[in-house]
Amino acid sequence: MTSELAFIAALRRMASHPGARGLDDDCAVVEFGGEAVVLTHDVMVAGVHYLPEQDPADVAWKLVASNMSDLAAKGAEPVGVLLGYMLGGDDARFLAGLEEALAHYGAPLLGGDTVSGNGAQALGLTAIGRATHRPVPSRAGAEPGDRLYITGPVGGAMMGLEALQSGLGADGEESLAYRRPQALLAEGQKLAPLVTAMMDVSDGLLLDAARIARASGVTLAIDSAAVPIAAPEARRADALRWGDDYQLLFTAPRDAALSVAAHPVGEVLLLGAAPLLLDGAAIDESAGLGFEHG
Amino acid sequence: MTSELAFIAALRRMASHPGARGLDDDCAVVEFGGEAVVLTHDVMVAGVHYLPEQDPADVAWKLVASNMSDLAAKGAEPVGVLLGYMLGGDDARFLAGLEEALAHYGAPLLGGDTVSGNGAQALGLTAIGRATHRPVPSRAGAEPGDRLYITGPVGGAMMGLEALQSGLGADGEESLAYRRPQALLAEGQKLAPLVTAMMDVSDGLLLDAARIARASGVTLAIDSAAVPIAAPEARRADALRWGDDYQLLFTAPRDAALSVAAHPVGEVLLLGAAPLLLDGAAIDESAGLGFEHG
Repeated sequence: MTSELAFIAALRRMASHPGARGLDDDCAVVEFGGEAVVLTHDVMVAGVHYLPEQDPADVAWKLVASNMSDLAAKGAEPVGVLLGYMLGGDDARFLAGLEEALAHYGAPLLGGDTVSGNGAQALGLTAIGRATHRPVPSRAGAEPGDRLYITGPVGGAMMGLEALQSGLGADGEESLAYRRPQALLAEGQKLAPLVTAMMDVSDGLLLDAARIARASGVTLAIDSAAVPIAAPEARRADALRWGDDYQLLFTAPRDAALSVAAHPVGEVLLLGAAPLLLDGAAIDESAGLGFEHG
Repeated sequence: MTSELAFIAALRRMASHPGARGLDDDCAVVEFGGEAVVLTHDVMVAGVHYLPEQDPADVAWKLVASNMSDLAAKGAEPVGVLLGYMLGGDDARFLAGLEEALAHYGAPLLGGDTVSGNGAQALGLTAIGRATHRPVPSRAGAEPGDRLYITGPVGGAMMGLEALQSGLGADGEESLAYRRPQALLAEGQKLAPLVTAMMDVSDGLLLDAARIARASGVTLAIDSAAVPIAAPEARRADALRWGDDYQLLFTAPRDAALSVAAHPVGEVLLLGAAPLLLDGAAIDESAGLGFEHG
């Protein structure tokens, strides 16, 4: 989607504020009275980011979780959310899921806007958080010699979506990872003082790893067999490219005493010919590394 | 739109945070490190909040101005914005208008999200501001004996929209008030220490005055002839009910030395049978006071 990328690039050039990291980063960080306020905004569109026939309570959950996951990657604690809600579906079910998710994450609803729809439903959520550690972790900071870690398996959301699409898992465990992803807020706060770079894996491990590599000016060498997956072994390659799992991907010095269970999945190298090596080989990025969000 | 109102009422019940004022208030106010951070989020949908054929640069301007106006009513200075942008129209024109508006208001782009569309374009903007005066003005605070003021005329956006719809004013002065509304940030900051209640007139003078009355637990008595209008005299009644002018409506003690030009348009009375009197008579709210945002 060249036009989208060009648009984002133009927006990024506009974003001259020191806290601004452009629209393809997850969060902005702004200083207020000696505190670092972390801000993120995600939009989900029916038919693009969720199935139009999905339970609106699950959609609300995912909208909250995806924003909370952005806060988690900054080691931030939630302060609240603003909702941009387009009326149109089963609004009561949406509200039930929203209330459940906000209670789960301790993020009160602070305000927002409701509008009449005029087509596919679009939902926006702004999350506001308070950084618990300075400097606030970013994508830029991975140092050659660091290890690359992930907090847990990828591929679970992929399997969940497939269960849902097959009609088996609308309410069941099979689709839970897709329907009700968990944002790792506590883990992010524990990791923030230890990491050199961190982000959440929302668009696929390889794509998001390439983003860390580019932002940090390094090469990341990933050992594919070391990546924990929540999918059959035959689907390993897909699991590395699928999004929506919201694990934390981070780099830390080799001697860091991690306070959170995490899996070493690769090494940080001096920048080579490619930002990303998979099992020692540069991978063809033109084929796509993951889910380029539409 | 009962379902919308019921939905908002349910959201407001959820909003238990002290800074939360529900989704039909304009802003949330959150404390960070001794500073009051003001947050607002507005959504605009093609065909609902703007004409699908409008210049996207004007749409971007209005999206920014309507959020800046919410900050103005809190006496806040802009810190930045997050954009939720649905690709689909003339994205380059949108970008040009966005850049112009953000430069005009000194509000840098901090981040956001871009998504593929799937129907009518929906645009969301979150604005972040810093309160310049404590307590931060709200709708609740008008006291019997205060005067009601407005900073300037209403009805200009109505006339501008009609010019645009008639095909006369796509680029001209005639439609300027509708296409490029001005948020009164400097005025809001000067007024914040003086007012007892304040909001911006986005949905119509009468509707927004009724909101101040209800939030403050008073009756507002408006003298319709005293309201400045930017429309023919024959359209006075319409001008009082039309939105999008973004004037500031506020109450202040009779002896307040206002530092901003403003027109006295009414009085604050003890709560009577109706929250709003127009020329001494209670008005029939069931007929609609203004623009209930869809």
